[in-house]
Amino acid sequence: MTSPEGIVRVGLVGAGNVGGALFELLQREGDAVAARTGLRFRITKVAVADPDRRRVAEIPRSLLTTDPLEVASSGDVDVVVELMGGLEPAREVVLTALAMGKPVVTANKELLSTAAASLYEQAARSGVDLLFEASVGGAIPLVRPLRESLAGERVTRVMGIVNGTTNYILTRMSEEGVSYSDAVKEAQSLGYAERDPSADVGGHDAAAKAAILATLAFGAEISQEDVWREGIADLRQEDVSHARRLGYEVKLLAIAERRAGAPGPGSDLLEGRVSVRVHPAMVPRSHPLAAVRGAHNAVFIEGDSIGELMLYGRGAGGAPTAAAVLGDLIDASHNLRSGTCSRLVVGARIALAPLGELESAFYVSIDVIDRPGVLAAVAGVFGEHAVSIRSMEQMGLGDEARLVFLTHSAKEANMAETLEALAALDSVRRVGALLRVLGEVGDGG
Amino acid sequence: MTSPEGIVRVGLVGAGNVGGALFELLQREGDAVAARTGLRFRITKVAVADPDRRRVAEIPRSLLTTDPLEVASSGDVDVVVELMGGLEPAREVVLTALAMGKPVVTANKELLSTAAASLYEQAARSGVDLLFEASVGGAIPLVRPLRESLAGERVTRVMGIVNGTTNYILTRMSEEGVSYSDAVKEAQSLGYAERDPSADVGGHDAAAKAAILATLAFGAEISQEDVWREGIADLRQEDVSHARRLGYEVKLLAIAERRAGAPGPGSDLLEGRVSVRVHPAMVPRSHPLAAVRGAHNAVFIEGDSIGELMLYGRGAGGAPTAAAVLGDLIDASHNLRSGTCSRLVVGARIALAPLGELESAFYVSIDVIDRPGVLAAVAGVFGEHAVSIRSMEQMGLGDEARLVFLTHSAKEANMAETLEALAALDSVRRVGALLRVLGEVGDGG
Repeated sequence: MTSPEGIVRVGLVGAGNVGGALFELLQREGDAVAARTGLRFRITKVAVADPDRRRVAEIPRSLLTTDPLEVASSGDVDVVVELMGGLEPAREVVLTALAMGKPVVTANKELLSTAAASLYEQAARSGVDLLFEASVGGAIPLVRPLRESLAGERVTRVMGIVNGTTNYILTRMSEEGVSYSDAVKEAQSLGYAERDPSADVGGHDAAAKAAILATLAFGAEISQEDVWREGIADLRQEDVSHARRLGYEVKLLAIAERRAGAPGPGSDLLEGRVSVRVHPAMVPRSHPLAAVRGAHNAVFIEGDSIGELMLYGRGAGGAPTAAAVLGDLIDASHNLRSGTCSRLVVGARIALAPLGELESAFYVSIDVIDRPGVLAAVAGVFGEHAVSIRSMEQMGLGDEARLVFLTHSAKEANMAETLEALAALDSVRRVGALLRVLGEVGDGG
Repeated sequence: MTSPEGIVRVGLVGAGNVGGALFELLQREGDAVAARTGLRFRITKVAVADPDRRRVAEIPRSLLTTDPLEVASSGDVDVVVELMGGLEPAREVVLTALAMGKPVVTANKELLSTAAASLYEQAARSGVDLLFEASVGGAIPLVRPLRESLAGERVTRVMGIVNGTTNYILTRMSEEGVSYSDAVKEAQSLGYAERDPSADVGGHDAAAKAAILATLAFGAEISQEDVWREGIADLRQEDVSHARRLGYEVKLLAIAERRAGAPGPGSDLLEGRVSVRVHPAMVPRSHPLAAVRGAHNAVFIEGDSIGELMLYGRGAGGAPTAAAVLGDLIDASHNLRSGTCSRLVVGARIALAPLGELESAFYVSIDVIDRPGVLAAVAGVFGEHAVSIRSMEQMGLGDEARLVFLTHSAKEANMAETLEALAALDSVRRVGALLRVLGEVGDGG
């Protein structure tokens, strides 16, 4: 399959941040990589949207094409690296390459969290690799450990910080008292956030990554649509600093976990029920995730035998992501040469557990009209819906009056009804942030 | 290679904690593993020292043998799992199995940190796997990320807490003010420390793991003998609590790093110089390693492209280690079926950098005779050896008098001479703990 001289010919689809970094990495470290792995990579084709645009890396004009499918089907390409992102034409590019017996390395989280099963099937049919370490957590090894090291493990929960932009924003709000909108602007000026930050702050990016991690952890196809999603746009500085005073850091968490409980109809076919969600949460300061600052990412993996693992590092950026792509490229090329490929079975029969049945303690802030009897009315609503209040604090007066509640553990369904009823009260101006309160973690001592 | 029914026949050498946990794990999760991986494992032979001993797992008597080589060479065994530990006969068992074309999965850190190259060579010659994820950090994926995910990365430093026993002892000393000897006793009663704790507290276990990690990180054979080693037995409770007051946690660190500097003779052949060492250090509280408590392990990996990664989890124990063995077993079996194997090149030409040229700030405690002029004499010794003092504190009076020094950054060679000269002073009763002070880490924001 590879060219006669033992060179691996790489077709690159997309030459932005990551693609450019990969091009430079191969130029700089090509000899060292060849010494360590016996593989010499040569980029033979690069598909870009606009050949005239200035790029990070100086890619020879002769390699450029504007047709991504040309790269996928080229006879001069042994392995395809798909870094263009988005659903189409990326999907067609990947399927075409796989169908032609070319391994594909991709960082495309949209694609993997939407059309995963069809891609895996094509890879298996063709007997070549579809590798995607770079799709979640930059250079942090997450996909490979879940896929290989933990192949024999019953993973019970994967929980982590998988979006660096929101974690940067939350860190600035917590540590420096920066407002939400200023923190977003800072993140934009540092290049962490897009001009339209909604994919990050709305939790869409984290939800796509949660779907990928859940698919790997539970061996069943879980798509973006299956992920309950709440972002951080409703959070105010006061919420974050109040949480901090209480001994918590607010983090946007992606959580995928196995659920116990009575199986539903047709349950004899099911291997389990899982819940996959993204929402802001209050993380106790003693928890390792509370210490994950700035644009870093970290993922906790819990399982029956392993106890708890945490994998931590730079979650994005051209260089770390390119390093993850290169790791996959090496693996895919070795496998191509020996005529084998990595396995990934996503055939488990699982059901999604509805959010409403989950339980946790909650933080909720409510803007109210500051007049006598308001607290009684508001507290009454909690009581009517079987949500028990642990503490209440009034912050601000008059037009700025807010009530901040911490509840005991309560059902999501009851909390949702409580919020709806609160919003309908005359004396409530706005129901603000809702935060789940994460429990303490064992100290492993 | 595998038996006709598609079953993988596993020969187990050693059935202690980890072997027993693996036996039980395969009994409990065998069906789930088969569904996920297509592999059904059957343990067909188990070598033990004493067939009459009671074990964790109920292993049928008919599988037992007292001859480990019988397992390695048996026609009923496809893959060998070596969990007996120690150098011989483990080495002979592993080499025999590999020579017969049987992949080997091992957790044997002594073997891998002493005779690694000959084992890798035999594995390569036979074209089968030698996998050892379980040899360092229990279930924490360390070996595989270094070997595969980071195969294209120029790793500059690997640094971590790789011995849970000493980390438990240090955590108890720091957080609860427990004395060193009481903390050792606690660790023994919890099963973390052996009756003779010297392999742990002397840093031997950590040094073996440092050698394995360094070999993987730098692609060159580094043995236990190459590792500079200091343990924690000289530490007193006062040192640990003093460090804590200064904002540091004392940790036993294993460090393997690339060194810059002028190449020595024959340097045209060298690809670099590395330093590998184990010693207690003061870790600033803001550093993620400072938060690693109890028997947990964590390893930092730094590289040109990836920035910083940290991998954290339970570093020992039957169940987590068995989970790591099972991950390798699945990989080795897949590879055996497809007639391929993992690659590991340890041919890099590197030199060891002598400890003396390293630099750091130091903490040193000295028991002195409490009389006028002592401080001047002691301080003079630092000055004579070009070690500049940042702060000094006297703790205790009379027979209990101790001087605790923090230095500015100084050369190890100068510090070693200082300690020697201090020990020769009449007024010095004992030179106590020496701690390297770790610098702050970037916040990645």
